[in-house]
Amino acid sequence: MEKSKVVFIGAGNLATRLSLEMKEHEFEIIQVFSRTEESARTLAEKLECDWTDQISQITDKADLYIFSVKDTALEDLLARMPHKQGLWVHTAGSIPMDVFAPFVQRYGVFYPLQTFSKIRETDFKVIPFFIEAHFPEDTDLLEQYARRMSDSVIRASSEQRRYLHLAAVFANNFSNHMFAIAARLVETHGLPFEALQPLITETAAKITDMHPAAAQTGPAIRYDENVIRKHTELLEEPAFKEIYRMLSQSIHDFSKK
Amino acid sequence: MEKSKVVFIGAGNLATRLSLEMKEHEFEIIQVFSRTEESARTLAEKLECDWTDQISQITDKADLYIFSVKDTALEDLLARMPHKQGLWVHTAGSIPMDVFAPFVQRYGVFYPLQTFSKIRETDFKVIPFFIEAHFPEDTDLLEQYARRMSDSVIRASSEQRRYLHLAAVFANNFSNHMFAIAARLVETHGLPFEALQPLITETAAKITDMHPAAAQTGPAIRYDENVIRKHTELLEEPAFKEIYRMLSQSIHDFSKK
Repeated sequence: MEKSKVVFIGAGNLATRLSLEMKEHEFEIIQVFSRTEESARTLAEKLECDWTDQISQITDKADLYIFSVKDTALEDLLARMPHKQGLWVHTAGSIPMDVFAPFVQRYGVFYPLQTFSKIRETDFKVIPFFIEAHFPEDTDLLEQYARRMSDSVIRASSEQRRYLHLAAVFANNFSNHMFAIAARLVETHGLPFEALQPLITETAAKITDMHPAAAQTGPAIRYDENVIRKHTELLEEPAFKEIYRMLSQSIHDFSKK
Repeated sequence: MEKSKVVFIGAGNLATRLSLEMKEHEFEIIQVFSRTEESARTLAEKLECDWTDQISQITDKADLYIFSVKDTALEDLLARMPHKQGLWVHTAGSIPMDVFAPFVQRYGVFYPLQTFSKIRETDFKVIPFFIEAHFPEDTDLLEQYARRMSDSVIRASSEQRRYLHLAAVFANNFSNHMFAIAARLVETHGLPFEALQPLITETAAKITDMHPAAAQTGPAIRYDENVIRKHTELLEEPAFKEIYRMLSQSIHDFSKK
């Protein structure tokens, strides 16, 4: 089969990981655009493809245009695209699909739900891709594309994706902040953060066997006032005290529903 | 070498996992005590040892007595022990070692930091054991005991252990609550919780490569007011709104320190 031709608009963490993965799965990445010449060139060299930092130079020869830029930059960029060829998709959790409607006919969303980082390899096989398109044929096409890389492809509306993105903030950003507070607590008392790593690994592993609502343990679920009082006394930072109180209350209330 | 003889006082999750593991590492569990006959018998059958539900019947023939009971039950139990033989230790994060001082001469703490559950196997090799004892020879002894099971044995004072236990509430209980809120958000919008599992797995895996303070991403760290406002609007539950605001603020403040 002829390879699908793809242009990446954006060269950040997600664009980098996704484009390199697509290259391994019968996609031909033909061009990378980034406003930052250095970013565009760096990614293009990895992909062995063309690059540009001029919007006007974005080629019209691709089947698929993947916009992977900051949420705030997207609309301006769409308005300045030099043509209306191919299928346009973005990779953002919180932007509705119809952001494309004023600019092009064939459009959709191609959203891999994962936290990407420069230093860690990503196993795309297990990453859920949430897809959506304006035309049913394009939804089918995006599903085929995603299935080349992942075993988990889910059709989700823009509305569902908004909640998904919100949920991801809790599951990823906020839980990581809990790890950061825990790290500070042990480190300021002469113990290494590494001592907490097995607990964190097991906490996350547990929810592959049981729902987190069922996995909840600790003083908060039984609202053990004795431990909760002692713990809030130990916390010197007022913000951490308040977080402790509020989350303990929330865990207790949650468990009763 | 002659096996060290151990009595378990308590038959909960931790006592069950720990006693079964110790049995595999040259310890002879000679008796299990629990106030609940059923619990005592069930664990004793697994260990193929004696059991009792009468405090007065706890044997004085052991080298080590491991108290693994509810924090609130410990002191009363110590006061009613029928003898003062052997080394007495507890397995609790938040109880100071000197809880034993009024009752016995040789005492200490043997605290494996992990979340234990009935349905999941536990790999003790990676679990950090935090140990402490009144006499230096007993600290050495507890270190030897812990090293039979784990590669990670750390001497920690009661003061350090208090902060460790507090940190564990953040790292385990509170992060799990973040997963539970995330689950509810997707489930009430027609998506399965399983779609979040790869993200959660990667979130926890990431902090084995980088410190959580460095791993922090998301709208809160740059205090993206646009996303934060939209997200708090989406959250119908007032408690979740407040948690979102407070944690976003805390992440932002934390990143500046």
